[in-house]
Amino acid sequence: MTDRQPRITIAEFDEIHHDAGPFTERFGFVTEHIGYGEVRVRLPFDKGHLRAGGTISGPAMMALADYTFYAVVLGMIGKIENAVTSNLNIHFLRRPEPVDLVAYGTIIKLGKRLAVCEATILTEGGDDPVAHVTGTYSIPPER
Amino acid sequence: MTDRQPRITIAEFDEIHHDAGPFTERFGFVTEHIGYGEVRVRLPFDKGHLRAGGTISGPAMMALADYTFYAVVLGMIGKIENAVTSNLNIHFLRRPEPVDLVAYGTIIKLGKRLAVCEATILTEGGDDPVAHVTGTYSIPPER
Amino acid sequence: MTDRQPRITIAEFDEIHHDAGPFTERFGFVTEHIGYGEVRVRLPFDKGHLRAGGTISGPAMMALADYTFYAVVLGMIGKIENAVTSNLNIHFLRRPEPVDLVAYGTIIKLGKRLAVCEATILTEGGDDPVAHVTGTYSIPPER
Amino acid sequence: MTDRQPRITIAEFDEIHHDAGPFTERFGFVTEHIGYGEVRVRLPFDKGHLRAGGTISGPAMMALADYTFYAVVLGMIGKIENAVTSNLNIHFLRRPEPVDLVAYGTIIKLGKRLAVCEATILTEGGDDPVAHVTGTYSIPPER
Repeated sequence: MTDRQPRITIAEFDEIHHDAGPFTERFGFVTEHIGYGEVRVRLPFDKGHLRAGGTISGPAMMALADYTFYAVVLGMIGKIENAVTSNLNIHFLRRPEPVDLVAYGTIIKLGKRLAVCEATILTEGGDDPVAHVTGTYSIPPER
Repeated sequence: MTDRQPRITIAEFDEIHHDAGPFTERFGFVTEHIGYGEVRVRLPFDKGHLRAGGTISGPAMMALADYTFYAVVLGMIGKIENAVTSNLNIHFLRRPEPVDLVAYGTIIKLGKRLAVCEATILTEGGDDPVAHVTGTYSIPPER
Repeated sequence: MTDRQPRITIAEFDEIHHDAGPFTERFGFVTEHIGYGEVRVRLPFDKGHLRAGGTISGPAMMALADYTFYAVVLGMIGKIENAVTSNLNIHFLRRPEPVDLVAYGTIIKLGKRLAVCEATILTEGGDDPVAHVTGTYSIPPER
Repeated sequence: MTDRQPRITIAEFDEIHHDAGPFTERFGFVTEHIGYGEVRVRLPFDKGHLRAGGTISGPAMMALADYTFYAVVLGMIGKIENAVTSNLNIHFLRRPEPVDLVAYGTIIKLGKRLAVCEATILTEGGDDPVAHVTGTYSIPPER
């Protein structure tokens, strides 16, 4: 889609992740790809992510999407502190089987003050998305 | 707001909660009030909910909202299986201090097939909301 | 809700309206109240707002909501140019009868860079909302 | 994307359009393509669509998106009465120049009761989207 290089590496992003606090850490997200404006993040299966009925919990998908957006934004603006989600809108499409989830995140628009992102979440090996998410990141002015 | 009685008690709702699977259980939500179309749910403070910077994580707020909507819907239609969130839209307003969060959930519209809910999340003792959330529940036809 | 005075009068707001361009003008919105953080705006009935089936068109409600948010924001920050909607999320609840629509707009959060607003739309004389809307306004920094 | 045939032709869709009531008609939407799950709809430039500053009004884009979703859904389920938008979420990305707008609509998920759609709106000849929209259609059960 673009020849531009990402402004953060997976190793750098993982380091931020490591500092992201206990809530994020327990999901064990694996950032598989960071390009300029497109990323892929995996939520490895864990029994702790299940809801009643044995499918992956909706809030686990929301956490995955939020994390994916963070990777998209930092892949474009680099290691900036204080970029925060201001809005997230998720459509739950199907109940995900109890396997890994994979989120494909892309940029819709990177502005000076706001970044709008999109993520499609699939199950490992599945063809049909289980969730579709858009979100807005607020980017601090002091850059 | 209404004299109508809720169609589920807190004890009944907690029992469903207990069966809701490990993801929901670890948040330790406390359902403080279930009325007909209005509920109050608490997310007790836990270090595990923190994100970088020492504030409560966004996805923890989304999980609280989703759980709150579930209480609103079941408070109106009773103990129905298979009511599922189809959409959730959250505005993050302020970074919440590391204290309990309290969600006030209300019904916007209960239809035959869809229920639209609203939740405002505040910190314990705080005056200003930290998040505002709307969501849609899909209600199974076979009732 | 507040003793604070609005920072724009209806007359001042109407003047902006008059300059708002032909698209907005043809709706004939009537701003009935502007308080600090709460407004009421009417869409007078017109056959031109109807959709198939004789109910008020969804996009007419979206236009009303957008205009209402504009009144909420200007009621709090005064006559600022270049405040623009960055996001709008609407839930259509019921098909509105062919009568006037009335939107009640309130502020959820006024920040330095973003304002989050809410609007509930009812039909004239109706008890139940026909639409519920949230939206984000982006406020220019140069103030 | 698919070899499946659309279940409505542009001519059939235009006929519905003609009956869609005065609100929709005045936009003069041109449906340029209806495939199975993907459509393209044009909003021809008209001075009546302008807002202050000479750019295309936000509500005109919302009307275009809503119409585009309708084409996506009918392209997949055929000429069904009473399919209605239940939710629409729009991100405004850039102020559109005063030219034609073109909306590319796709299906995210077609379920029995809900269809989730996506639309990207560009200006004629422009490379960057001016708006991104997702929406939910509620499909009547009696089919």
